[in-house]
Amino acid sequence: MNGTIFRVGCNLTYEVAGPSAFIFNIGVVTNSLQRVLSEQFETAPVYQVQESLSKLEEKRHHRFSSGPGPLRVSYQATVELNHHLQKGDHVPETVPSGIPSQVIPYLYPSRYCESDMLVRLAQHEFGKLQHGFSRVTAICNWIHDNVEYLRGSTNPLTSAYDTATERAGVCRDFAHLAIAFCRAVLIPARFVAGYAYALQPPDFHAYFEAYLGGEWYIFDPTRLAPQTGFIRISTGRDAADTSFATIFGPATFSSMAVTTELLQGPAPSYTTDAISTSSPP
Amino acid sequence: MNGTIFRVGCNLTYEVAGPSAFIFNIGVVTNSLQRVLSEQFETAPVYQVQESLSKLEEKRHHRFSSGPGPLRVSYQATVELNHHLQKGDHVPETVPSGIPSQVIPYLYPSRYCESDMLVRLAQHEFGKLQHGFSRVTAICNWIHDNVEYLRGSTNPLTSAYDTATERAGVCRDFAHLAIAFCRAVLIPARFVAGYAYALQPPDFHAYFEAYLGGEWYIFDPTRLAPQTGFIRISTGRDAADTSFATIFGPATFSSMAVTTELLQGPAPSYTTDAISTSSPP
Amino acid sequence: MNGTIFRVGCNLTYEVAGPSAFIFNIGVVTNSLQRVLSEQFETAPVYQVQESLSKLEEKRHHRFSSGPGPLRVSYQATVELNHHLQKGDHVPETVPSGIPSQVIPYLYPSRYCESDMLVRLAQHEFGKLQHGFSRVTAICNWIHDNVEYLRGSTNPLTSAYDTATERAGVCRDFAHLAIAFCRAVLIPARFVAGYAYALQPPDFHAYFEAYLGGEWYIFDPTRLAPQTGFIRISTGRDAADTSFATIFGPATFSSMAVTTELLQGPAPSYTTDAISTSSPP
Amino acid sequence: MNGTIFRVGCNLTYEVAGPSAFIFNIGVVTNSLQRVLSEQFETAPVYQVQESLSKLEEKRHHRFSSGPGPLRVSYQATVELNHHLQKGDHVPETVPSGIPSQVIPYLYPSRYCESDMLVRLAQHEFGKLQHGFSRVTAICNWIHDNVEYLRGSTNPLTSAYDTATERAGVCRDFAHLAIAFCRAVLIPARFVAGYAYALQPPDFHAYFEAYLGGEWYIFDPTRLAPQTGFIRISTGRDAADTSFATIFGPATFSSMAVTTELLQGPAPSYTTDAISTSSPP
Repeated sequence: MNGTIFRVGCNLTYEVAGPSAFIFNIGVVTNSLQRVLSEQFETAPVYQVQESLSKLEEKRHHRFSSGPGPLRVSYQATVELNHHLQKGDHVPETVPSGIPSQVIPYLYPSRYCESDMLVRLAQHEFGKLQHGFSRVTAICNWIHDNVEYLRGSTNPLTSAYDTATERAGVCRDFAHLAIAFCRAVLIPARFVAGYAYALQPPDFHAYFEAYLGGEWYIFDPTRLAPQTGFIRISTGRDAADTSFATIFGPATFSSMAVTTELLQGPAPSYTTDAISTSSPP
Repeated sequence: MNGTIFRVGCNLTYEVAGPSAFIFNIGVVTNSLQRVLSEQFETAPVYQVQESLSKLEEKRHHRFSSGPGPLRVSYQATVELNHHLQKGDHVPETVPSGIPSQVIPYLYPSRYCESDMLVRLAQHEFGKLQHGFSRVTAICNWIHDNVEYLRGSTNPLTSAYDTATERAGVCRDFAHLAIAFCRAVLIPARFVAGYAYALQPPDFHAYFEAYLGGEWYIFDPTRLAPQTGFIRISTGRDAADTSFATIFGPATFSSMAVTTELLQGPAPSYTTDAISTSSPP
Repeated sequence: MNGTIFRVGCNLTYEVAGPSAFIFNIGVVTNSLQRVLSEQFETAPVYQVQESLSKLEEKRHHRFSSGPGPLRVSYQATVELNHHLQKGDHVPETVPSGIPSQVIPYLYPSRYCESDMLVRLAQHEFGKLQHGFSRVTAICNWIHDNVEYLRGSTNPLTSAYDTATERAGVCRDFAHLAIAFCRAVLIPARFVAGYAYALQPPDFHAYFEAYLGGEWYIFDPTRLAPQTGFIRISTGRDAADTSFATIFGPATFSSMAVTTELLQGPAPSYTTDAISTSSPP
Repeated sequence: MNGTIFRVGCNLTYEVAGPSAFIFNIGVVTNSLQRVLSEQFETAPVYQVQESLSKLEEKRHHRFSSGPGPLRVSYQATVELNHHLQKGDHVPETVPSGIPSQVIPYLYPSRYCESDMLVRLAQHEFGKLQHGFSRVTAICNWIHDNVEYLRGSTNPLTSAYDTATERAGVCRDFAHLAIAFCRAVLIPARFVAGYAYALQPPDFHAYFEAYLGGEWYIFDPTRLAPQTGFIRISTGRDAADTSFATIFGPATFSSMAVTTELLQGPAPSYTTDAISTSSPP
């Protein structure tokens, strides 16, 4: 690989009122198009952190137990990206009989992507469009045109069904609705959480992947940051699978700072090309 | 008045397992544009029926108590209609400060018309259209184009919020969604239940009224029967206000037959004119 | 009357960005148990305020149009209360056949009180309890025991169906759930907004009325203020009917201050008696 | 193994109006406690069936493409069961820090098990109970006591959130609610579809597993069939993961017959013991 190099990181602080267990999901994954060159996961005070190694491509878990008091968690990584771009015109949809068994679950409804409840709406809007990459682009355009990006308009319980009707949300809501629409027209789709270069204000970002022509391609209906600067943290059916922290115990979130810097290579840019950022299934 | 004359009626049968109280809401109301010439409300076996007289324009109640056994309720009426038609072009919306206090409640969300949850969708689709009669027509057209009329697709719990997303329903669902859209763009709207000439299969019908230019005008997004053949039974915020039977006790619905015949005058026809069928508020 | 005398009032401020129309619903109603001795409704700048006079018992509307700029609305009233108290033991439920036609609508589901969706839960918890005043008390106790009073846990879209499951809310949510439970076991119930002596922090309050033995009796599942200090502003099916301000135009709410003082008579106290505060229907 | 032997099977018929692709999820899985001795998966007309082999423990896929016409699918298997029973008293809950990474997803909300929306209800009812096997039993008892088993009361869109409030459902709804309650009190739980000996009328069955003391234990809040006669077909987060047929194309379901016979060994019986039927994670 000879790709673009980024430094990403986050600092999270908590007030812990009693013994608590933490699972963090903020480390960058390695796959055939993205490689961690170096990284550090630290806690203050220092706790012994256990890392789960399985299924690196989908997500990683950093786990530890904490005593009471203030807690700071910081993650820093240098990552090389080698996104594969191509013209979307040549990317077809996969016929159902060709969808691999491990991709089939991404056709089913999930907590925040109730595709089963949106079949008529999706069929009405997208059912008759030409199949292929351009149909997913049409779904993104519809969302961009019909849903307002509005901080504070939704909460952790908000789902695609709500957003289809209430027409406002943030990046996670945009991704959920796009995923639900894709599944409703029989295109497998999944949720991706990541770091995003040039996102303002800096934060974790949410986008999605659609399974087309035997590969997963990324899409972002928010258009808030250039897709070639997306560094993948985790992949799942929806945000329920990828929350950056799962906490067992009386801990209160205090603050968060997320950074994404370009170290080497061309500045990321917006594109309408098809971008594949994970290994084929 | 010198209008069109209809004979309407219905036969309802029940199996009653124990002492029950019934409130029927199937009698035609009299207002300045519709007049009951003669009518009969009968039960078999014969029970003493109490009729509420207040607010004749909105709805009537026929009430009685029944013992166990089979029950038949029949209503027949001869009604003269004098619908007032005019070109819709000249019908403006009423500015909010001009809406009478007794009409204000029809701006608020109700059980089946959650206009508060549909504001963004309604504003996006209808917010920038020219105000007036044509805007309500645009709402009806949108529903006709985007929602499938499909028997059995909904149930008594279905509301406008569901229909906005699930995109299928029957006449009551069409009316609920239209009402919710109207209220969401600040046009007072209410639900009407009635008899409808030439409706196939014969049944009670549901449509709605919007308050425009100081009058209530009827609309029907289903386009299933000509509007000049609609005979009003009751008016309310939504179907919760106008159910044809409210039953207290162990009674089971068995069968229903609804009839609407033209006795005298021109056959009702579809129109795109503005039709006012109730007295001004 | 020779009752307790209160001074109530509120100050509301808005930023108005362009021509707007306002309808306020903050004035105290007069009925056979509550009487306005004197009152003032003022705006700054001074606008001409139109007051709707009809149906004084249910609610009043103060309406005006405003130009751009800061707006202050203030209402002050001196009110005499003559609540009628009696032992609840002797208050029966009204059999369905005895419910007057004008009370029947309070048996139907409404926007925030989806009694139709809560029938099984309500029947399971309250269906077999002895009928009468004590059954409504049991509904209030269940809510007090099972739902947490938690500021900020709900929003204007929250309904009884949500609260039945999510188990947290504020006074309006408590009232909505109680009303839905009552209707689901065939007790007519309605929403009341009012001023409440000794409520901390001072605010408008929401409680409800159940129709029992031919009268409306008030109940408050929050237990946050003594019921004999409740001064009625408006009555409706639920909060959709009684919002204190309906605004047409680009106005933003800035601040609110509500006051309730005792001027003369005994201090209000908590009671488990049956309190009737409106005229019989 | 030297266990009980069952013959299970199903016959499914469809009318296929055009080229369609099918994925069936009706084959019995093999794990350390259940073993397929022999099996046949047949279609009429005969189509070439592709079987996915991965992750045998969770579920299997039989896939094929069909032309138009009537279609019959039949599956027959002979299965040996070796359920492991023990007293539940000694089965503790697993502390969060001890939950393996691959089990963590079963703590998250899913399409039909919105544990995030049921936290307060679950904590109120089950939060203070003694931790361990008996707490999951208490959840099952609550559901059995509060939810009515009623065919036809729910549909494929019904979720745990609905059932918590509407209080009626079938086996899948019972399992969904139990899973949601478990997750809401931090016990990992997952959905199991299977064949069930002595279930009346014969049908596929749905139950659930809770992760306790490092193992998955099965529970069935319906109490409709003895747990030692449950033969596992598939496991997932909820019914979205385990539907017995996924169909792409114009095929209509016609009929279904499911059979479960005891061939050898003791008749299954109801038990309050802890039953583990899958290999440890």
